[in-house]
Order: sequence, then structure tokens, then C-alpha cells
Amino acid sequence: MSSTKWSACGLITLTTDFGQRDPFVGIMKGRILERLPSARIVDLTHEIQPYWPLEAGFWLSRSARYFPPGTVHVAVVDPGVGSDRNSLILETKNYVFLGPDNGMFTAVWEQYRSEVSVRRLALDRLGAFGIGSLSATFHGRDLYAPLAALLASGAYTPADFGEITDDFVVAHSPVTVAPGGTVSGIVATIDRFGNALTNIDAAFLNNLHGITVHFGEICLPLLRTYSDAEPGTLIALVNSFDVLEIAQVQGNAALALGLARGSKIEIRGRTTHSQSSSD
Amino acid sequence: MSSTKWSACGLITLTTDFGQRDPFVGIMKGRILERLPSARIVDLTHEIQPYWPLEAGFWLSRSARYFPPGTVHVAVVDPGVGSDRNSLILETKNYVFLGPDNGMFTAVWEQYRSEVSVRRLALDRLGAFGIGSLSATFHGRDLYAPLAALLASGAYTPADFGEITDDFVVAHSPVTVAPGGTVSGIVATIDRFGNALTNIDAAFLNNLHGITVHFGEICLPLLRTYSDAEPGTLIALVNSFDVLEIAQVQGNAALALGLARGSKIEIRGRTTHSQSSSD
Amino acid sequence: MSSTKWSACGLITLTTDFGQRDPFVGIMKGRILERLPSARIVDLTHEIQPYWPLEAGFWLSRSARYFPPGTVHVAVVDPGVGSDRNSLILETKNYVFLGPDNGMFTAVWEQYRSEVSVRRLALDRLGAFGIGSLSATFHGRDLYAPLAALLASGAYTPADFGEITDDFVVAHSPVTVAPGGTVSGIVATIDRFGNALTNIDAAFLNNLHGITVHFGEICLPLLRTYSDAEPGTLIALVNSFDVLEIAQVQGNAALALGLARGSKIEIRGRTTHSQSSSD
Repeated sequence: MSSTKWSACGLITLTTDFGQRDPFVGIMKGRILERLPSARIVDLTHEIQPYWPLEAGFWLSRSARYFPPGTVHVAVVDPGVGSDRNSLILETKNYVFLGPDNGMFTAVWEQYRSEVSVRRLALDRLGAFGIGSLSATFHGRDLYAPLAALLASGAYTPADFGEITDDFVVAHSPVTVAPGGTVSGIVATIDRFGNALTNIDAAFLNNLHGITVHFGEICLPLLRTYSDAEPGTLIALVNSFDVLEIAQVQGNAALALGLARGSKIEIRGRTTHSQSSSD
Repeated sequence: MSSTKWSACGLITLTTDFGQRDPFVGIMKGRILERLPSARIVDLTHEIQPYWPLEAGFWLSRSARYFPPGTVHVAVVDPGVGSDRNSLILETKNYVFLGPDNGMFTAVWEQYRSEVSVRRLALDRLGAFGIGSLSATFHGRDLYAPLAALLASGAYTPADFGEITDDFVVAHSPVTVAPGGTVSGIVATIDRFGNALTNIDAAFLNNLHGITVHFGEICLPLLRTYSDAEPGTLIALVNSFDVLEIAQVQGNAALALGLARGSKIEIRGRTTHSQSSSD
Repeated sequence: MSSTKWSACGLITLTTDFGQRDPFVGIMKGRILERLPSARIVDLTHEIQPYWPLEAGFWLSRSARYFPPGTVHVAVVDPGVGSDRNSLILETKNYVFLGPDNGMFTAVWEQYRSEVSVRRLALDRLGAFGIGSLSATFHGRDLYAPLAALLASGAYTPADFGEITDDFVVAHSPVTVAPGGTVSGIVATIDRFGNALTNIDAAFLNNLHGITVHFGEICLPLLRTYSDAEPGTLIALVNSFDVLEIAQVQGNAALALGLARGSKIEIRGRTTHSQSSSD
């Protein structure tokens, strides 16, 4: 309730594994607009790999910042739908995140650790808002869409829908640093160009020099940008989302190297003893 | 014109077989916004199987209810485009449906039978609205988009564009009930998860007990929800759209069973003689 | 600045090769709405063939007219991103086009030749608008999205962001006419139905009669519309975008004939000496 807290701007983003073939996303939008006719809705992605919630968390933690303060980010990726799973509302200074408590929000929680509060959705408060008799199988339509509309309307705050908790599912694949300076992470997502985006933040490279990037036996150079090498070259770079990415210039790195979501990537270099500094 | 009739809310949904690769849908939106700058537009689906209008009707009849009263639902799925096909405007208490007269709206007509009026679009009235010289091949852009904008604006009603008719194409695959209690229907659509949604409404199951679901030689149990069985199990359930669905828990039922749009599905059970009751 | 010039209407269209799997398009929308909360945004297409900018130009030049005057059309298709490529702002009476200077806008420039002015984006003016420190790899997010918002807001004009130039990349595949009347062009795009749309405008057919259309050894009749032939027939027609199209009635011409983007198409006929006339 403090003045530094989130204040709704009427914008909602949607992240799901529903795909775009079926009317599921459109129906969620109908339910949002039924409650908040002025809502603006942006599709973040609907192609999260089913049963790979880590990908949703990766994209949310890396994309949220490009939306106006006051945005509600809704994510529905849930193999356990229909079971008695809890839902979470995360609140940062600028954003609210809403979705199932299945570990999907771990990367968001880590990203905003210093400012985030996590609330468990109190289902028994929803009846008063006409949200109830939930379908066993379509929580996106019956729960998250109307709730997102209420939050985006500015008439309610996360505190109206649940109490703060520190008991939620944490499920991540941490980036580790070995004593010799070797950094290990995984491929979090592969984009439509076949670029493999890892969960390794650029900050891990700050104190290293002589860096090479490794996938199994393959060793790749770390370059500044795609155009620093000839078409066909396999490279690593820090991409525009500030994570390590493996790419093939004008090609498809995932196909060329057999990279998949979850593939292990290593960064080797020599540790410097200077202050951390990056540009 | 009665006060219980449809009143526009400025929202338009689009259902087509245009896909999302090409700019056809975007161009329809441009034409809508040209006429009604304040229009809100939601994509229901653009992946209707070409030449399978039954799928569009299935989704419209099951999805329309999740949109605010006053929504205009436009559907363009038409193998016969360019021929002298008629167009229909269906009006219910809450919604208007607009599209070609090719049987696509049969499921909508059945769903809203007690309240729907069907009008044949009078092409000769369109010149007065600047809609004319129709392209032979892109009615979505040249006819349905501007007409939807006029209807969604609230300045016009369906009665302005055509007279009520009972002469329209009815093309459906009815659900039948045999004397012994066996209910027969078909797969209406297959979603991106490989779930096969049938045209069999949950109401057909109300008076049956000891229910099993059959696809050829395959017999499936009827469960309450996906999470009532182990991953990999093939099941039937009443889904969140109140129709019978065949699914594989965390798998792809269509691939596993070879189900396709149009596949015949049977429900067997014993008829009860009690009052109809379901929860 | 003259009163006949472009005046913003708050609508932005997006054309990219980003696909719809990843959140890249959604993030661009976030950045637009951050600057212009009232912006209306329409996706034209995000499935431009990577490294085939001619396709983007084809669609822009054929689609822009269906959007309201005052629309900003943004296009991002750029294999050279990260290099020191320039950007262009094209201004016509009704539209502004914004994107990289890689030849993509050649078809737009040809379409609006009599009225278009072309400006080179002055990067050094962007700092004053808070646009700067550009990511080496995501100009859509860091440059084009905020700039489109400024242009669509109506507070700025193209002249605020660059000077008129006639030094820009022209890269096209022109339609040629041989002395005997043979017209040669190429397949510019293939739509989801497998129809092959050429870059040959209908105007080239006006003075010809006895027309046949040729792809290698294959000879196709020129018909008026899809419904003028039986299902399965391979035909040519002038489509609803006023270009020559090769189609298979209720089938996939590209698959049936092995047509690809860039395939050479010829029109043969006898030149008439009468006035140009077509209906």
C-alpha cells in the first residue's frame, strides 16, 4: 500500500503454452475484456514448451522490464492443472505476476529478489468477485483472466487476494561457478532462428578473460555480435537480453550443434583479481 | 429492435482459416479500424482446418459465451469464395455472428435456437455504406471487415443489412442416441496438445451410468480430470467446454490413437430411469 | 509539413521475420505502449522468410493501403543487424514506413514513387528522445519500437528524425517485358494455402490477349477466380491484391508445382494495339 508500490496501468501480458492454433488465448482475452473493457492485452508468447515451465520463467524475468510500470504479467503453464495446485501473485515495484505455483516464477523471484513480495492466492476470497466454480481444466479462462482484469483495473491490489508467503515452489537450474572460474548453466530456450539462449547472465563473465564457451566437445569463441563473423560460423555472444547465447551466423545453431532446452553449457576463462567491471 | 436485443459493445472477434503466416488477418484489422477506430479486436482462431467449416462452428458455439454482450463474431472459412455464395447475420440476445452461408453456423444456430434470428445479407444495401466492387477472392477484407465495423459501432443493427430468412445451409454431423443408450458423435477438432474434442455435449451423459467411451476397438474410461490418471493414460473426460474429450495425460491422444477430425466416437452406458441430474 | 502530408492516427503495424513463437514481438509492443499508452498495434506478418526482405516489401506495398491514413508501418527484417546499417523513414501522403535500409522498402518506394519522400534516420538526434545505447542485436525493441511510438503519437514528424536522401539501397527483382509481349517476373511470396503470389502487377496484362502463364515447362490458363475450375486444377489468376497468382483450386500449387520464392514466372500473349483497358 506504500506509495512506492505497484500501481495498475491497464496493461496485461499473457504467457502460456496454449499455442496459437486453438481459441484458448482468445477466450482468455474475452474474459478479461468482459471485466475490464479498457484493458490493453499483449501476447508475450504462447509457445512455451509444454512441461518446461523454466522457459516461461526465463522469458518473464528477461522481458517484464520492457513493459510500462503497472503491467500485470499473467502466465499459465501448468502440467498439474486440475490438481489442487496453488496460485501465486508476485508484486514488484513496477509489475504484478500471476500464475500457478509450480516453480515457473523462480527466475522472476530471483530477478526481483530485493523488492518482490509473494502472495498465495486465497481462493475463498474469489467468490465475492464472482469468480468461482472453477473448471477443472481451464484455469486460464476461469481464474487467471478475470483476476488479471481486477488487478489491471486498479480497483484492487494483490493484498486483496492473498497473504504474503514464503512457502512456494522453487524449481530452477542454477548457474554454478567452479573454483577455477568455470561457469556452468543450461540452455533455457531456443528461438525461432535456432539461437540457444542460456540462463547464464552476462554478469558471470565480468571477471573472466580469455573466455571460451563449451558444449560437450565443441568450443566456441565469444564475439560481440552476429556481424563479427562470416555466415555459417558458430559463435557465442552476450545477447540483447544480457544472457549468453549460442548462435550460427545466418544459420541455425540448435540444428547445427544438436542443442536442446536443458543442454549444459560451460564458460571457461581465467579469473581476474580486479574489481568487477563491464561496459 | 426490442430492448432485449443485442447492443454493440465495440468488440469484434475473428475466426478464419487464414493462418497467421500471411498478412490477411492484419489487413482485415486495418479495414475494421479504418471504419471504427475505437474497435477492439480479438483473434479467436485463424487455424480452422481449411474446408472443415464444422470446426469453426464448433468453436464459435462453444466460445462466444466468454465474450462480453454486444460482441460481433466474424467467421470466414469458405472454400466456395468467389462463387455466388450468400452471407448470413445471426443475432442472439448477446451476440451477432457474421460470415458466409456454408453451414458453418449450424452449431451456433443449434446452440442459440430459442433466441436466434437469421438474416440473409442484402448485398444491394452495401453500396450505400461504401462497401462494393467486391474482390472475387477476399471477402474477409472487402465485405466482412467493413460490415463488422458498422455493426460493432452501434450505429446499425443486423436489420439494416438484411431480412430474416429460414432458408440457409444446414450442414452438420448430428449426435445420435440409439435405443440402447449408445450415443454417437464425431471428433470436431483436435487441439495443439492432441486432445480430441467431440461434438457430444455433456448433457448426453446425464442419464447414463457405467459409461465407457469407444473409438473403434479402443475402450476408454470416463474420468473427471487429467490429474485423475497417471501420465500416458488414455482417458475420456467432460472438458471445460462441456463436451466429451479424448485425451492422453501429458501426452498426445490424437497421435496415440490415430484420431482425426471426423473420427466417430461412441459412448456406451446404461440408461437410468430417474430424473436427469448431473453435477 | 504541407497540409496534404501524413498526419498520425495512433495506429502502428508490425512486419518482421521474428515469428510468433518467441516474445520478441510482444516486447516491441511493450516498448511502444510505454511511450504511447493509447497506441493501437496490428500485426501484419511476423513470418517473413528470414533473409528474403523482398517479401516484406511486397506485402507492405500491397497491404498498406488497407490501413487508415496516418498509420505507421514498421518493418524489421535484417540479416545485417548489428552492423552499421542505416535506417530509413519513408513518408507518403497517408503513411509512414520505418525500418532498416536494406532494400526492403524498394517495392514501397516504387508503389508510391510520385509522392514518397525518403529520409535517413539521424541516430544522433535520438538521444534527445531517450533512445540510445542500442543493443547490437535487437533494434526492433531498442530503436524502431520507441521511434514508431513517437511518430504515431502525432507529436513529431519524420522531418524531426532525419534529412531527405536519395542515397538508399535499392534491391529488387524487376518485372521485365520482352518485345514480343512476354512478361517475366518472380514468385514474391507463397501463402499458407500454397498459392504463389508473383510480383507481376495486373497492369502488365492489360494490353495482352490470348494469355498463358508459364513456369518452366508448365503452362497454366488464366482464369477469373478459383471457382471457375474444378478442385485440383492448376490455374493462374489476378488475385485480390492485383498481382498474378498461381493456385491450385482447393489444393497447394507450391507443392504441386515445386514453386518457391524467387521462381521465375512468364506471361505470354499477343500485344494489342488498342487503348489499355481492363475491367
